[in-house]
This record gives sequence, C-alpha cells and structure tokens, in this order.
Amino acid sequence: MPTDIEIARAATLQPITAVAERLGIPDDALHPYGRHIAKIDHAHIRGLESKPEGKLILVTAISPTPAGEGKTTTTVGLGDALNRIGRKTVICLREPSLGPCFGMKGGAAGGGKAQVVPMEAINLHFTGDFHAITSAHSLAAALIDNHIYWGNKLGIDLRRVAFRRVLDMNDRALRNITQSLGGVANGYPREDGFDITVASEVMAVFCLARDLADLEARLGRIVVAEDRDRKAVTLADLKATGAMTVLLKDALQPNLVQTLEGSPALIHGGPFANIAHGCNSVIATRAGLKLGDYVVTEAGFGADLGAEKFFDIKCRQAGLSPSAVVIVATVRALKMHGGVAKSDLGTENVEALERGFANLARHVENVRRFGAPVVVAVNHFHADTEAEHAALKALCRDRLDVEAITCRHWAEGGAGAEALAHAVSSLADGGAAAAPRFAYPDAMPLEDKIRTIAKTLYGAADIQVESKAAAKLAAFEQDGHGNLPVCMAKTQYSFSTDPTLMGAPSGHVVAVRDVRLSAGAGFVVAICGEIMTMPGLPKVPAAEGIRLDAEGRIEGLF
Amino acid sequence: MPTDIEIARAATLQPITAVAERLGIPDDALHPYGRHIAKIDHAHIRGLESKPEGKLILVTAISPTPAGEGKTTTTVGLGDALNRIGRKTVICLREPSLGPCFGMKGGAAGGGKAQVVPMEAINLHFTGDFHAITSAHSLAAALIDNHIYWGNKLGIDLRRVAFRRVLDMNDRALRNITQSLGGVANGYPREDGFDITVASEVMAVFCLARDLADLEARLGRIVVAEDRDRKAVTLADLKATGAMTVLLKDALQPNLVQTLEGSPALIHGGPFANIAHGCNSVIATRAGLKLGDYVVTEAGFGADLGAEKFFDIKCRQAGLSPSAVVIVATVRALKMHGGVAKSDLGTENVEALERGFANLARHVENVRRFGAPVVVAVNHFHADTEAEHAALKALCRDRLDVEAITCRHWAEGGAGAEALAHAVSSLADGGAAAAPRFAYPDAMPLEDKIRTIAKTLYGAADIQVESKAAAKLAAFEQDGHGNLPVCMAKTQYSFSTDPTLMGAPSGHVVAVRDVRLSAGAGFVVAICGEIMTMPGLPKVPAAEGIRLDAEGRIEGLF
Repeated sequence: MPTDIEIARAATLQPITAVAERLGIPDDALHPYGRHIAKIDHAHIRGLESKPEGKLILVTAISPTPAGEGKTTTTVGLGDALNRIGRKTVICLREPSLGPCFGMKGGAAGGGKAQVVPMEAINLHFTGDFHAITSAHSLAAALIDNHIYWGNKLGIDLRRVAFRRVLDMNDRALRNITQSLGGVANGYPREDGFDITVASEVMAVFCLARDLADLEARLGRIVVAEDRDRKAVTLADLKATGAMTVLLKDALQPNLVQTLEGSPALIHGGPFANIAHGCNSVIATRAGLKLGDYVVTEAGFGADLGAEKFFDIKCRQAGLSPSAVVIVATVRALKMHGGVAKSDLGTENVEALERGFANLARHVENVRRFGAPVVVAVNHFHADTEAEHAALKALCRDRLDVEAITCRHWAEGGAGAEALAHAVSSLADGGAAAAPRFAYPDAMPLEDKIRTIAKTLYGAADIQVESKAAAKLAAFEQDGHGNLPVCMAKTQYSFSTDPTLMGAPSGHVVAVRDVRLSAGAGFVVAICGEIMTMPGLPKVPAAEGIRLDAEGRIEGLF
Repeated sequence: MPTDIEIARAATLQPITAVAERLGIPDDALHPYGRHIAKIDHAHIRGLESKPEGKLILVTAISPTPAGEGKTTTTVGLGDALNRIGRKTVICLREPSLGPCFGMKGGAAGGGKAQVVPMEAINLHFTGDFHAITSAHSLAAALIDNHIYWGNKLGIDLRRVAFRRVLDMNDRALRNITQSLGGVANGYPREDGFDITVASEVMAVFCLARDLADLEARLGRIVVAEDRDRKAVTLADLKATGAMTVLLKDALQPNLVQTLEGSPALIHGGPFANIAHGCNSVIATRAGLKLGDYVVTEAGFGADLGAEKFFDIKCRQAGLSPSAVVIVATVRALKMHGGVAKSDLGTENVEALERGFANLARHVENVRRFGAPVVVAVNHFHADTEAEHAALKALCRDRLDVEAITCRHWAEGGAGAEALAHAVSSLADGGAAAAPRFAYPDAMPLEDKIRTIAKTLYGAADIQVESKAAAKLAAFEQDGHGNLPVCMAKTQYSFSTDPTLMGAPSGHVVAVRDVRLSAGAGFVVAICGEIMTMPGLPKVPAAEGIRLDAEGRIEGLF
C-alpha cells in the first residue's frame, strides 16, 4: 500500500466548482482559494434557509487508545460510500491545527483511500481561518492590556484576567509568562500565558455561531476578567467585538473541499474537545444539511466526551437532531481495552477482545440514551483475524442488539464502507429524526449536570467538587449562567479521570478540580484532572524532517 | 470628494484573470484568492527568467511630517498615468501590516483616486502572507526553547537568545516578558519579548530572497543565539529551515491586484523600514520587470532611509538598476520643515516653503549620488496656492536643476499624474540604466560604512559608536560578516537622530547605540536612537469603531 501522501498526490482532483455544482452552488457563490478549495459565500448560505434539511449522521468512537480507531477515515469513507450508493452526502469535519503538525501528530485529513484533499493545504494554512481566529483573539488580548494602560476605566483587576493569549504553535515556553515588564511605557506587569489557538474561546464561539450577528453577540458575552468588585468584564465592555467580527467575517464562510472520490466535504472550525465541545462549525453542519440529503460529521475523542458534547452542547444550541450515530471501534483498540500491550496487538486474542468490549458496550448504551439509533463500524486493520471480527459482531448482536459492520475504507475507499452506508441509511430513513433526549435539562443546577454526566455516562459513583470550584459554580448561577450546559474536560482515554483505567471502569469518583465560564460559547467547563491547553514539541520534532523536495513538493509532513 | 472607502466601493473591479492576461499571465499560472486577488505561481515566475527587463522607477520622498506626503498615492497615480500614456506598467508595493489598522494608522493601500483594490482585503488578512511569516517565525522560536528543553546539545546560552517572538498586533504588553515559568515541564525560564511581524528577520529574508532555495539558505543563516563560547547558533543548526520554507512556500508567490484604473499591482512583503530595508519583495520587483515595460515601486520613509536602503541593500543584493527616481514633496510638508505649525498650514507661506526646501534639496542631492536621474513630484493638496507651487518649481529649477511637477492623482487618478509620467518616461528612456553607484563598497569596514552614510547623506559631522556596539561590529567582522551592507535604524523625521530637527540639519553627531546582525537578510543593523519594534495601541484605538454595517460591509477601518 502506498503512503497517505502518495495516494493523495496520485489523485486527480476535480475543480472545486464542479464539486459545488453538484450541490447546486453556483460559481458566483464561491470564493476560490486556488482551484480545489473554496469558501461558500455568506449570502448563499443565508439563501438556503428555506430549503428542507437532510439527515444528520454522527460518527463517534470508543475511548481512544494508541492503537488508533480511525474516526476521521470512517467519516470520510462513510460519506464516500453513501454517495456511491446514490445518497447525496456532504461530509463535515474539523479543520486541523497547524502547531501539532510540527510535533508528532501528523496530518488530520483522513488516511489511506479515505482522505480529504488537497491534504497539504488543509493541514497547513488552509484558508487562513485559524490565523483569523488567532488575530481576533490577539486583538482582544491587546485591547485588555491597552485598556488597563490608559487608565483602566472598567477597573479590571490585574490578578483576575481570565482571557489568556493564543498562538497556533506547540510552544511550552509560553504556557506561563509575566508580561508588561520593562517600565512604565510597557504597562502594568502581570502574569499571563498562551494557549494554542484551538483552545481559544473565540474558536468555540466561531463554531457555535449561527451567523455573523450571532458571532458578534457571542463574542460580546465572553468574560475576560473581573473588576475589583468581582464583577465580570466582557469583550462587549471593551468594545472589541466589531473589529473582531470584521477579522472573522471571511473565515466564518465554510470551506468546501473534496474527498479522494470527489465527495463534497465542508471543513470548518476546530475547537478543542476537552475545554471546548470539539465539533466543526454549526454553520458548516447546517449548510451541509441544506445542501445534501445526508451529512456525515464527527465529534472529538470518544463518545463519552465527543458524542455527549455533540448532543448536549451543539445539538442543543443549534437545534439539530441526528438520525443515526456510528460508533467506530477496532479489534486492536478493544484488545488494548482488554489489557493487551501495544506490542502484542498483532496476535489473535478473542478473550482480550471480549474483555475490552465493555468499553464499546458502555459507549453504545450511552449514545442510545440520547435517543438516536446506533450502528458499530469495525474499522478493519491488517492483522485482524476473521475470528476476532466474528466474535465482535456476535458480542454486539447478542449483548447489545446492535449491528457491527466491518469497514475497509482505508484500503478500499468508499467501496469498503458500502455495507455501513446501507445500514446507516436504513437507520436514518426510518422517519424524521426525533429531537435528542439530552443528558440533563437546562434548568438543572450546574453541579447536578456534572454529576448526572459522571454517574449516567461515565459509570462514576459520584463527583467531588473542590470547594473553590463549587464557589465558582454558585457564582456563575448567581450571575445568571445556571442554564448553560456543561462542557466536561477530562482525559479522553478513560471513562474515569485516570487515563490508565481502560475498559469500562465503575464506581470511581470524578474530581472536579476547577470550573470556567465560557459565556460566549455558552457553556461552563468542568475541569477534571490536568488539561493541557498548550502542547509542547517532542525531543525530535516532526519539523526537523519537513522540507520541500527537489520538485517543490512537501516532504515529511505526514 | 467622497471618502477613500466610498471611492473604493464604487469602483468596478476587473476579474484578476483579465488583469493578468494583459501581462501575458495565463489562467493556470494564477492561484485565485477570490475574484480580485491572485498569486502568480512559482513556476511561471521561473519561466520569465529569459525575458528582457523593463525599467525600474523608484518613488521616494522628503523626510515625512504629520502633514503627509502621499508617497503611496504617487506610486499608484504614476503607475496609472504611465499606463494611460501607453507604457505597460506594473506597480510594486509593500503589504500593509494588520496590527496598526486597529491603532490609528488606517489602511495602506493609497487613497482618493489613487488606490489599490480590494482595499479591505489588502489591509486585513490579504492572502495570508504575514500570517505565514508569523507561523514560520513562531515555529523557529518554539524550536529554540524546545532544543534547550530537551538537553540543549548546541549549548545555547539562555541569556543570549537574540531571536525574539512575533505577532501581527500592536501589543505593548508583550514587548518584554519572562517565559518558561511554572516549573520543570515548561522549560528554562528566561527573558524574551515580542516584536510585530513586520520586524521579524524572517520578513526581511522573505523580501530579499530570489527564490525558494535562496529563502531556505537565508533562513539557515539567521543567527538566533550564542552558545557559552559566544559562537553563533543559527536556524540551520536547529534544523528549522525546511519546515519554515514549507510554511512560506505559497506566501512567496507574489500577489497580483489592480488599481482603481485597472493597472496591475504586485503587493508582496512588507519589512520595517528602520531595522530592515523597507521595500517590497525582490521576487515581486523582478517579476514586475519581466512582465511590464516599467515597474513603479516605493521605499519606506524618506529618501535618507528608504532610497538609501533601496540602493545599498535591495539593488545591491538583487542586481537592480533604477532608471529614474521620483522624490515626492508637498507644499504643506515643506512648510512644516520650514517651521510652520500644523495648524497654520492652510495659510500661504512662500518664505517658510523656501526654508523647508532645504530638506528636499538634500534628498535630491543624495539620490543623485546613486547615479539615477531625479524628478520631483509635488503632490497637490487642497489648500496649496499657485504662488507656492510656482515658487517650489522655481527653487527646484534654479537651485537643483531638477524638474518639479505638480500631481493631482489623489483627486483625479492617473490623469492627474500624466505630466509626471511623461517626465519619468523621458528620463528613463534615455538608454539602459547604469548600475547604481553605491554609497560604499562591500569591502569597507562596517563602522566606516555607517560613518559614510551619516556624513555623506545625513550631513553629520561624525558618528559616535558606543563601545559595546563597536565591539560587536568587530566581532561581526571577525565572524566574516564585514562585507555586508549596513541598515540604518534611525528616526524617519530628521536627517539627524533627533526627530524634532526638521529641514536639513548639519554638523550633528549620529550616536550608534547598538548594532545587530541580520545574517539571513544580509545586513548589519545600526541602531541610532530608540527604535520601536512593537507598537502600542492609542487611548481610543481605531478597533473600537471598526464593525460590519447592516449590509455586511466593513466600517471604520479607514
């Protein structure tokens, strides 16, 4: 099998105008970025409002392991397969972050024969959306210190500035800084730090906004600091939102690209899946539903984080009703959940698979609580055995009454996911999708929302909220934010807060170390454990091997 | 007269493909960014190598004053006028910086009827070139601290890291920081700071590189730190250059836009004019010379800084020979140089004009030393009187034997600069341009180069090099950098280092406070006075008034 990059380079891409045309998007509604990428104009998106909506399919996964699950490849492969069987389908994905490309992550545009292209552009600057978000965030950060410098009329408490800075680079040295040093002309010294751009609340706002007006209103609600009386100071107070919206105006138009098989893909926005909700933009998802009969989209991490937030935050805020949910699992990953070391995954081990199955089982049960029909996609890997696949299917059928379908999209493209496509479409075509049953009602107190998620979905015995965090939750409720959903920030590797507890742990206690208000995005973040918002680079960063080859092609990026 | 933005909005733009076609650029050599902006592909630029070159016209100016000179509008107006009189002309300009738009600067795309369009896009993210430079710089900065973190094999001296960080925002709080705080996982604490992106040496390298290979080689020569033995550590040592070049690959392709009258304009790169050389990219200028019969380009600040560096750095490195130089002056600005307060500029004052003429006279004499023929463009302002214009023309003729031509391009577009266009083309068409006579030979010692510029061009009695700076110059020469040109960083408002000394001061001493090696860009910076590399925002930043109006158009940016 050739490498991802070799496959991508060998592909003959269609002009993006041709891809758009099949969705009924005329040329003059496109803003081209080269020949194979285009933004869809705001006006065209607005004009779709009265059209009927297609069916929404969510792709999520078991708890991730180092063995790999292939959620993005499954999303792409399923989209291709649905198009192959005659269903007009749009794929909606997150945009990759630039910084991690230079560490060890590699690209985030699928793989094998299930890729979105042009992959180099998508993985690097793409259409500049993340740069626009970095700019808008940086402007807001500069305006805060500028306000303090010029008299601090709002009385911002220097010690209580919550809005950190961002940069789209893995740079541990910037996690904690002191700034405004060097004398009077440089302002009032204070502690600060940088997060990576995807962790910016501006990113979360960008991905949840319905349109430009909603974007500006949400930006205005972002709480950046407190004054000496502990009253919240917002970006609206700082008059920052008009200019930020101007910086984000073009970026907010969704990006259209294609898969290797020519399926349309909207790649737009990419918030963190821990301190934010981890889904592509609402604007792209809604546009996709107007443009296609089906939208296949994915959520970050495993279903405990990704699918839960997809339902409880994105669907709740945007009024979306998924028609089916695909949970991606692999034999390899389930064996790891069953206790097998990574080095031993090449050996058949049905027993371990059965132990690890508990992880998948809980995710299936969890997703069913939201009211959507579920199918399991078993993403085929080279060393998997027939016996393992047969065992997994039997377990799914017998213990969960859920269909499990082996998929080979990585090796075969959409053809390898046709069985999955048939299963998904028959689930989705059963009738109009029911509105999701959220894990908790808006009116539930914030602490109870966290407890409900932990007990119902994580199998926890209870939560333990640190007293400082409890006080903050009470303050948020006092300030009128009690109706917001919660956004759980915990390890993606376990249902518990201990990343080494694989499978389906029960009876653990979820410690809530801190909480944060994301009033612009519209959720309260519950921080359970250490959450890294600015990654570092490894000892030998991928950057060292990235270069242009003699033909001017990019080498070493993937 | 309508405002700049009203004029720009009322314009009917041609498809950029049509503008390109008139230059013989086929569609498939263009990377479109929307309908009115395109990058010209590297391969097409390479293919132009064998073509004959047009004539190069430099537009520079007297020492700037708060009265305004209109160098960019003159560059645009002259380009339009040359096209009007049948000369195929390409305009080459710098890209505006994003950060200052939110302070008080306004846009940088010309004004009145002499503008490049689409102006909002050009002034904001444009094609993302500056974001790419910020990314490449940020990657290098991250790799430095990452190298130190993972064992510091190169033995970088933490106290001697010269490579600061950058962001394209006016943010005084980031001028001086301490970083890597918070414990072992965040690295080794050290002092650092941010400059604005245009001050990055990566920007200067970008603007002086001939092609991608030269870009990568120059990046590799950037000295970022010293080790404990005071040996230079470069970006090549850190293996940073391949990935940086990948990040800059698309950006290095020049951007094609148009003027209000449809003249082609290449807007590409934008280094600081103090600590760097202040000209658009060599790649754009050279491409323009292959594509047009004339290229009209500008240099930063007044001729003492801008034109001198244009000749001694850009022309020297790129082998360019200007055929004519236009020095822009205004009656208003010369009256200020003659001692008139800004509030009194509306009153006719031929006497003050004659006093201030000394500033123009020295710039004309200086530029002539480089061997290029000179013409003076008197940019007409509303309150100017006939008597003033007549007096200025007589002074130019009688004292300098130089033609001075009144231009009305701001109010009239290219038609208002036709007389200038005729004068310029008759100067330029006199024969093949002679190679410039540089202010100093490569082999001259660095300190003597600085002294030569100060005495010959600034009218200084001498220079005074601080002992630390002198030692650094000696070290640079020891390390083999003695042949580099020098890049003067001093106030743009005076021939001296005192910004309040207007007109044409003589006999002053130029104090050289510090020197810096820009080995990648290929010059040694001589810092004379305080040079700000990270601006701040004013008390009421322009950002507060920038917003989208009800029709989604940008308000308050200009």
